[in-house]
Amino acid sequence: MAATEKVVYRWGVDETGKDVTEADASMKYIVGGKGANLAEMAKIGLPVPPGFSITCQTCVAYSDNDNTWPEGTYAEIDAAREDLERRMGKKLGDAKDPLLVSVRSGAPFSMPGMMDTVLNLGLNDESVQGIIEQTQNPRFGWDSYRRFIQMFSNVVMGIDGDLFEDAINELKAKRGVKADTDLTAEDLQELVGRFKEIFSENVDTEAHPEIVKDGKAVFPEDPYLQLRLAIEAVFGSWMNERAILYRKKNRIPDDLGTAVNVQIMAYGNKGDNSATGVAFTRNPANGDKEYYGDFLVNAQGEDVVAGIRNTEPIADLKTTPNLEEAGKQLEDIFELLENHYHDMMDIEFTIENGKLWMLQTRAGKRTATAALKIAIDMQKEGHITKAEAVQRINPEQLDQLLHPQIDPNADLNVIARGMNASPGAAVGAVVFSSDEAVNYEAEGKKSILVRWETNPDDLKGMMAAEGILTSHGGKTSHAAVIARGMGAPCVCGVEALQIDAANKVATIADTDIELHEGDIISIDGTTGQVMLGSVPLVEPEITGDLETILNWADEIRLTVKMGRPIGVRANADNPEDAKLSVEFGAEGIGLCRTEHMFLGDRKRIIQDFILSRDEATKEKALAELEKAQEGDFLQMFKTMAGRPVIVRLLDPPLHEFLDSPRELAVEIAKLEAVDGDPKVIAEKSNLLARIDSMTEANPMLGLRGCRLGIVYPELTDMQITAIANATAQLIKEGVDAQPEIMVPLISTEAEFEYLRKRILDVIAEVSKREGVELNIPIGTMIELPRAALEAEKIGQHADFFSFGTNDLTQTTFGFSRDDVESAFIPTYLQKKLLPTNPFETLDAGVAKLVDMGVKGGRAANKDIVCGVCGETGGDPDSILMYYKLGLDYVSCSPYRVPIARLIAAQSKLASNEVH
Amino acid sequence: MAATEKVVYRWGVDETGKDVTEADASMKYIVGGKGANLAEMAKIGLPVPPGFSITCQTCVAYSDNDNTWPEGTYAEIDAAREDLERRMGKKLGDAKDPLLVSVRSGAPFSMPGMMDTVLNLGLNDESVQGIIEQTQNPRFGWDSYRRFIQMFSNVVMGIDGDLFEDAINELKAKRGVKADTDLTAEDLQELVGRFKEIFSENVDTEAHPEIVKDGKAVFPEDPYLQLRLAIEAVFGSWMNERAILYRKKNRIPDDLGTAVNVQIMAYGNKGDNSATGVAFTRNPANGDKEYYGDFLVNAQGEDVVAGIRNTEPIADLKTTPNLEEAGKQLEDIFELLENHYHDMMDIEFTIENGKLWMLQTRAGKRTATAALKIAIDMQKEGHITKAEAVQRINPEQLDQLLHPQIDPNADLNVIARGMNASPGAAVGAVVFSSDEAVNYEAEGKKSILVRWETNPDDLKGMMAAEGILTSHGGKTSHAAVIARGMGAPCVCGVEALQIDAANKVATIADTDIELHEGDIISIDGTTGQVMLGSVPLVEPEITGDLETILNWADEIRLTVKMGRPIGVRANADNPEDAKLSVEFGAEGIGLCRTEHMFLGDRKRIIQDFILSRDEATKEKALAELEKAQEGDFLQMFKTMAGRPVIVRLLDPPLHEFLDSPRELAVEIAKLEAVDGDPKVIAEKSNLLARIDSMTEANPMLGLRGCRLGIVYPELTDMQITAIANATAQLIKEGVDAQPEIMVPLISTEAEFEYLRKRILDVIAEVSKREGVELNIPIGTMIELPRAALEAEKIGQHADFFSFGTNDLTQTTFGFSRDDVESAFIPTYLQKKLLPTNPFETLDAGVAKLVDMGVKGGRAANKDIVCGVCGETGGDPDSILMYYKLGLDYVSCSPYRVPIARLIAAQSKLASNEVH
Repeated sequence: MAATEKVVYRWGVDETGKDVTEADASMKYIVGGKGANLAEMAKIGLPVPPGFSITCQTCVAYSDNDNTWPEGTYAEIDAAREDLERRMGKKLGDAKDPLLVSVRSGAPFSMPGMMDTVLNLGLNDESVQGIIEQTQNPRFGWDSYRRFIQMFSNVVMGIDGDLFEDAINELKAKRGVKADTDLTAEDLQELVGRFKEIFSENVDTEAHPEIVKDGKAVFPEDPYLQLRLAIEAVFGSWMNERAILYRKKNRIPDDLGTAVNVQIMAYGNKGDNSATGVAFTRNPANGDKEYYGDFLVNAQGEDVVAGIRNTEPIADLKTTPNLEEAGKQLEDIFELLENHYHDMMDIEFTIENGKLWMLQTRAGKRTATAALKIAIDMQKEGHITKAEAVQRINPEQLDQLLHPQIDPNADLNVIARGMNASPGAAVGAVVFSSDEAVNYEAEGKKSILVRWETNPDDLKGMMAAEGILTSHGGKTSHAAVIARGMGAPCVCGVEALQIDAANKVATIADTDIELHEGDIISIDGTTGQVMLGSVPLVEPEITGDLETILNWADEIRLTVKMGRPIGVRANADNPEDAKLSVEFGAEGIGLCRTEHMFLGDRKRIIQDFILSRDEATKEKALAELEKAQEGDFLQMFKTMAGRPVIVRLLDPPLHEFLDSPRELAVEIAKLEAVDGDPKVIAEKSNLLARIDSMTEANPMLGLRGCRLGIVYPELTDMQITAIANATAQLIKEGVDAQPEIMVPLISTEAEFEYLRKRILDVIAEVSKREGVELNIPIGTMIELPRAALEAEKIGQHADFFSFGTNDLTQTTFGFSRDDVESAFIPTYLQKKLLPTNPFETLDAGVAKLVDMGVKGGRAANKDIVCGVCGETGGDPDSILMYYKLGLDYVSCSPYRVPIARLIAAQSKLASNEVH
Repeated sequence: MAATEKVVYRWGVDETGKDVTEADASMKYIVGGKGANLAEMAKIGLPVPPGFSITCQTCVAYSDNDNTWPEGTYAEIDAAREDLERRMGKKLGDAKDPLLVSVRSGAPFSMPGMMDTVLNLGLNDESVQGIIEQTQNPRFGWDSYRRFIQMFSNVVMGIDGDLFEDAINELKAKRGVKADTDLTAEDLQELVGRFKEIFSENVDTEAHPEIVKDGKAVFPEDPYLQLRLAIEAVFGSWMNERAILYRKKNRIPDDLGTAVNVQIMAYGNKGDNSATGVAFTRNPANGDKEYYGDFLVNAQGEDVVAGIRNTEPIADLKTTPNLEEAGKQLEDIFELLENHYHDMMDIEFTIENGKLWMLQTRAGKRTATAALKIAIDMQKEGHITKAEAVQRINPEQLDQLLHPQIDPNADLNVIARGMNASPGAAVGAVVFSSDEAVNYEAEGKKSILVRWETNPDDLKGMMAAEGILTSHGGKTSHAAVIARGMGAPCVCGVEALQIDAANKVATIADTDIELHEGDIISIDGTTGQVMLGSVPLVEPEITGDLETILNWADEIRLTVKMGRPIGVRANADNPEDAKLSVEFGAEGIGLCRTEHMFLGDRKRIIQDFILSRDEATKEKALAELEKAQEGDFLQMFKTMAGRPVIVRLLDPPLHEFLDSPRELAVEIAKLEAVDGDPKVIAEKSNLLARIDSMTEANPMLGLRGCRLGIVYPELTDMQITAIANATAQLIKEGVDAQPEIMVPLISTEAEFEYLRKRILDVIAEVSKREGVELNIPIGTMIELPRAALEAEKIGQHADFFSFGTNDLTQTTFGFSRDDVESAFIPTYLQKKLLPTNPFETLDAGVAKLVDMGVKGGRAANKDIVCGVCGETGGDPDSILMYYKLGLDYVSCSPYRVPIARLIAAQSKLASNEVH
C-alpha cells in the first residue's frame, strides 16, 4: 500500500445537508461492494445514514504488517471519525446525545453472513444515559447497551455467545418470563452488569492487553478504543476459516481484502413507527416483476436475516400503520434503483421513527430461473442489450436447471410444505448435522440437510448435501440465500417440522410421521413440497427462458461479425449420450472414447487378444472386436448424422483390461497352502506370469495410446476397419456420417506419420472393397508436452488437433491423475501452493503449451481445426482462456453443453468487448 | 536425387598417362571415403589403379526407387565403363587382353568388413584365355576365374560359399593333395566347370531372372551384366543386417548410402615379384612412430585381411627379393601421405610384377593409447595444433583407458601368449560362439569370446563379450580391427590355442590344459597374455599422454578467450565416488543423491518414520536419520573441500522404502490358509493397509521430490539441519565446505518459494546456534516441463538450476523411465520411430524446454548457474547441445568425467570454431 493512498472515503450528507460523498459504484475494489453502493445511493439522492469506508487496501496493508497498523494509517481513520462527529453534531460516548455507529465489513464481492459486524458502537455507562435521555426510553437504551456488549464480546473479542444467551435465559427464568421482550429496563440494566462480568471472566487478555486496567480485564468504556478494536476485528475476519472456505468455493481471490464501513446507527426498534427489512426489486426465486421481501416492525436488521422472528411480506409495508409513508417512498426507490442500476436489486432498509434509511443495495442474488427471466425481461424493457443479458447469467447456476426435476406424473406422498426457497428437486437421506452430511458425501451417499435454520458454520454441510430443508426462516434467511447461490434445492420455513437434532429425529406436526437419520426423503425447492421416500426425477429440457438465452448466446458465439466463432461439442461414448448432446445443442462429438466400448461382455474378448500366445485365438478375438465396434460406430454416426464425430483410438494401458496380479497371486498362494489342484495352480501361475510381464511401474506413462497401435498394429487396423466399414454402410444408406479419427498420446512426428499412413491404407482398402469414397479426417490429441513443442512438425500431417488437458496437465506438472485425491494435491490446495486444481481449471503453465500447440499447428496447416476435450473443456475460466488462445471449439460432457454454450458466448464477449 | 546430379566421378590417369581425376578427399559424402581417398592419392601423384566411383546419392536413389535404376542413371555408369575401357586400351571380356575390374563398396564412413566386394570381374570362358595369353600363366588364369565365380556367386547371388569350398576339398581329396596351391591349372579348369554347375543348381532365379537362358540358370558370361549385377549387390549390401547393426553402434545415419568403386584389377598373386599388403604409417596399437603392417608375397589382398595365411612384417618388404624397389617407394609414400593428411594413415597396396599400386588410404583406426600418442606427437611435429590434437581423440575410445587394468603386482598364471591386438584387460567365462556370448550378457555374466578367427557375423558376440581371444590372424585381422574400434581387449593369433568349437573345448599345445565353456580366463590385450582364472584388476589413473590431452582439453574448455567456458562435475553419492571424481578432474559434485544414503541399515529407520502413527517414534526416527545424514555430509564436504557439492533433497516416492504390498498380501493369505496366529495376521494386515494407503498408481508422478518436503516438512528440516550442522562444524575446523541445496521436482514458483523460505529458516537457526555464518546457495532441479515453462518465475528465487533430463524426458515424452526396457521403446527404436533412445541422448523436443529453462532463468537472475545432471550429461551429442544451449557445466558419473572433459572441449571447439 503506497503511503499516499487514501485510507478513508466519506459518503452521505454533512452538517448542512450537503452531500459530501467521495466514492461511487465503480469503486468496489477500493471501498468494497457495500461501501460503493452506499456511496452511489447517496450520490443519487437516496437517504443513506452518513458514514465512511476504510479501504480494502488498508485491510491488506494491516494484514501484511502482521495485523498491526502501518504508520499514519490510523490517524486518517481517527480524523474521519472526528469528521463524522462534526457532520452529525454528536460525539461518540457523549452523555447527553451520543453518536452511535455500526462497523461492518464490505468486501469487493458479496459474502453473505461470512464476515463480522458490530452494531450500537459507542455505548458505555455514560452514553447509555444520553440515549435514554434522547429517546425517553430506558428499555431501548439498556437493551441497546446489552446487545452491544454481547456483540462486541462475541465478534470482536471472540467470547462464546452462548454465555450471554445463558445469562438472559437465567434471568428470564428468575423473572418467570418467556420472551426477551418481557424483560424490563431494570432487568436489562442488570444484564448489562452481568454481561460485563462475563466479559471480564472470559476475555483473552493476552490477545487484547489494551482492555486490562489496573491488572483487571474490564469492558472498554472508551468508545474510540471500541471503534479501533471493532475495525481490527473486521479486518481479522477476512481471514477466518468460514470466509476462506466461501471464497474458495466462489473463486474470490484472498488478496482483495475487505473494506470496513463505519456508519451512524439507524434504529428499526424504536417502536411501532420503526421497522427494518430486506427486499428485492423483483422476485429472486422465479424472476417475476413484483416487490419481494420481508420486514419486521420494531426490530433490528439481524432479526430479519437470522430468521429468528417470522416476517411480514414487503407488499404489506405501505398499508402498515405508522409506516405507510416510508412504504410508498421505498417503492419509488425500487423503481429508481432499477432505472439506475438496470438490474434486479437487493435492499436493506430501516425505518426509524417513520424516516426511511437505505442501509445497503446490491445486485440481488437469484435462482437460475429468475436470472433468466429477469435478464430477458430487462432486455425487453430496454434496460440492457441481448449481449448484456447473456453476460448477466451465472453459468454455474444453470446447472440446477440441467439436472433432474421431479417427474410431473409421479404420485407424491407430500408430508409437509414450506417456502420454495431455491428451486430444483433432491432425494437423499435425512441428516441433522453438517458433519453428518459431509460423512455421507465421503461415503458417496446422498443426503438432505435438515435444520431448524442454518448458520455460516453449516456451509460445508450445505455444500455436501443434495438439498436443504429448514423448519424456520423466510426466503431471505441464511439457508435460502446460500442455497440459491449454490444452486442447491432448498425448502425452508416448514413450520410443521419439529426437529430434535440431539436425538436425530424429526416429527411432522399433526401426523405420526417420524423422520430418523438415514430415512430417505425428497424435497422440491420449486414448489416447497417435502415427500416421504424417493420420488422419480425426470431429465431437464431446454425450453422457455433457458432456450431464449442460449439462443442469444449462440448468436453471439457463432456470428462471425461479432468476432471469431467458438464451437461447443460433447464428449460422448454411446448413442444415448450422443442423442442428449444434440438435444443440448452440441455441434458434434469432440471425443468418443472407444475403450469404454470394451467393457462388460467384451472384456473377455480383449483379454483373449492380449493374453493368448496363439495367433488363431488372437485373430478370432480381433474379428469379434471388429464386428462389435462396427455396430457401435454405426449407431454413433447415425445418431450424429450431419455432425462430426471424433473417434479416439484405443487409449488405456492394455493391462487395465486384465485381472489384478495381486489378487491372482493371493489366490495362488491360498491354493498352494491347501495343496490345491496342481494343474489349476500351474494355469493360474502361467496367467500371472503373463500379466506380470505386461505390468508397468507407471502405466500412465507406458504402453498406451498410439503406442498400442504401434506395438500391436493389428489393433489399429481393426478399429479403422470398423470405422470405415460403418461409414461406408451408412453412406450407402444415404446417411451423412462424418467420422474423424483421432490418434491419442502422440509425442513425435514419426509416430504420427507411421500411424497416419497405416490408417490411410486401411481406409483405402475398405473404400475400394465397398466402392464408396471415404474422406475421413485424421488428427491427433496434443496431450504430451513434446507434442505441443513439436506441433509445427506434427501439424504438417494432421487435419485437426485436440488438446487433451488431462494428460497434458499430468505430464506438464508431473502429477499423476490416478492419484490426485490420495496424495499431495489436497495439501497443495490447502497450503495455497496451487491456486486451483489444475485438472479442473487450465493452468497458466499448461496454457503456454496449448498456445505453442495452436500456433505450431496453424503455422504448419492454416486449416487445422483446434479443439479441447479435457475436463477443463467445460470450466468457465478455462473456456475464457481457450477462446483467447484461439481454439475452434471446446468439448465437454453432455450435461455441461448448455453451460459451455453460455460460457463460450460470455468468453467471446469478454475477449472481444462486443456489446 | 536431382536429375542433373553427376552419377560417376573418375580418378587415375587416362590413355596418355594424364591424370583425369574429378574428385578429392573432401568429397566423401559423394564418392565415399575410399573413392575420395583414391581420388586424392591420384591427384597428389600416387600410383592408383584407374577407375571411377558411382556416388552415394545414386545408391540412395536406387534404394528409394525400390531397388531399380532411376531413368538415365545406368546409362551414365555404362558410359564411364566405356571410358575406362578406352583409358586402359582394353575391353571387359576381351579374348586377347581383357580388362578386369574390382567392384567395391565405399561408404562415407569406414565400415570394415561390413560390405561387399567383387574381384576379377570381367572373366568368362573367352577372357580367361586372354588372361592366360597375357600372363603366360594358365594356372593364374583358371585360379582367377574360379575365384571370380565363387565370389560372384556368393556375394552377388547369395549362394552359400561353403558349397564351393566343399568342391575344392573334394577335388583335393580326389587328387590326394593338401594345399590349394597343389592344384594344377587343369584341376582349376575342372573346378570352374563344377562351380558353374553349383551356380546353376543353387541360384535364385526368381530374384535374378536375367541369368536364365532358354529356361536354364546359367552363369552370366556377359561382363556388362556381371558389372551391373555386382553394382546392384553392393548397393543392396548397404541395407544388410550386419551393416545396419554396425551403423547403429557407430551412430552412422542410414540415409548416407554407399558409393561403388569400379577399378582395374591389380594382382599381387602373379608370382614372386608380386605381393599385397596392409599397413599403417604408425603403430595403431601404441602410437609409436614406426611402419606397421603385414604383407604376403604372391597373394591377393583378401588373403591378408582374412588372416588365412600368416603374414610378413611390413618392415621386411624393402629387403624381400624382387620387391626391394616397391618397398622403398612405399616408405616414401608413407611420408608423403602423413605430410599430406597430417594423420596416421591406413594403406592397402598391391605389387604386380614389381609395380606398386596404392589401393586405398584412410585415417588409420587406432587404440585409445595410440590415438593419444599420435595426436601429441603430431602436435610436436608441427602437423597439427593442440586444438586439432584434442579433436582427434574419439572420446568413446578413452573408455578403455578408464576401466580396470591387470594389477601389475599380481602373480599371473600365463598359459599362452598371442598378439597384443587391442589393449585393456578382461576377465570372463570362455564361450565358443557369438550366440553364447549374447546369452551370457543377457544373464548378466561376463564372457571372453574364443574363436579361431572372427568374421563379420561375430559382431554381436564381440559386442556382448568382455574380450576377444583368437588362435589365428594378425594385428590387422578382423578381430583385431573391430576390437580396437570397440575398445574391447583383444589377444589374437595365439598359435598354441587349439579350438574344438563343436565340442566346446580348447587345448593349449604342449600342456594338458583344457578350457571348457564356462571356465574363467583372463586376457591382457596390452601384453598379449592369456591367464587361467580370474586375475585382480586395478583402477586406471590419469597419467602420461592421457593427462596431456586432458590438460589441453581443459585449457580449451576453461579459457574464456576461446569462448564461453563449460565445467564438468560428477554425480557422486558417497565419499569414495567423490574422491574418484576429483582424481578424474571433476570441478565439483553436480548431484549428490541423498536417497542412496537411506539404504542398508537405515532403511528400517525411514520405515519407522513412514509407517508409524505415533509422534514419538517418528521423532526418534528423524533424529537418528539426522545424525546419520550429518555424518554422510561431513565426509562428502570434507572430501570435496574447496569445490561445490550440490546436495539434492530426498527425491523418490516414500513407498520405495517399504515392503512389497503384494508379497505381504501373499504372506497373509498363506497364514490365513493354514490358520496362522491371528495376532500376527492382524499385525501384518495393519501394515499392509498402511502400505496400501501410500501406494500410488504412477509413483513417478506421485508423492516424491519436493512434494515430500511439503507434505512432510519435518523431513526437509531434518536434511537441512544435517547439511547446515556438518557445514558449520567443518567451517569451525577451517575446512572450506561448499554445500549447495537442490530441491527436486519443482513444478511451480509457489512450491519453491515455500521450501526456500523453510530452508533459509532452518539454516538461520543452525547458523545462530553454532555462531557460524552459513552462505549456502539454494537451487532447483528443472525436470518437469512446467518448471522449464515457468523458469522466469522460479528463477527469481533460485541461485542455480540443474536440468534433470531423466525426469524431463520422462514427462516431455510421457515415457516411463522405469519401463523403458520392457515396454515399447525397443519397438520404437527398431521401427526407427525414434532416432536414438531419448534417455541416452538429449532429444530435440526436450532441448527446447532446456532452452526455455536457461533463457527464463537468466532473464530472472543473470547470475544463475545452469547445469545438467541427467544421464545425458556424459553423452557426446548431448554435451554438444548443452554447450550450444549455454549451460555452465555438465555433471556425469565419475568414470565418465575425463571423457566428458574431452567432449566438452571438442563441443566448444565445434561450436565456436576456435582452432
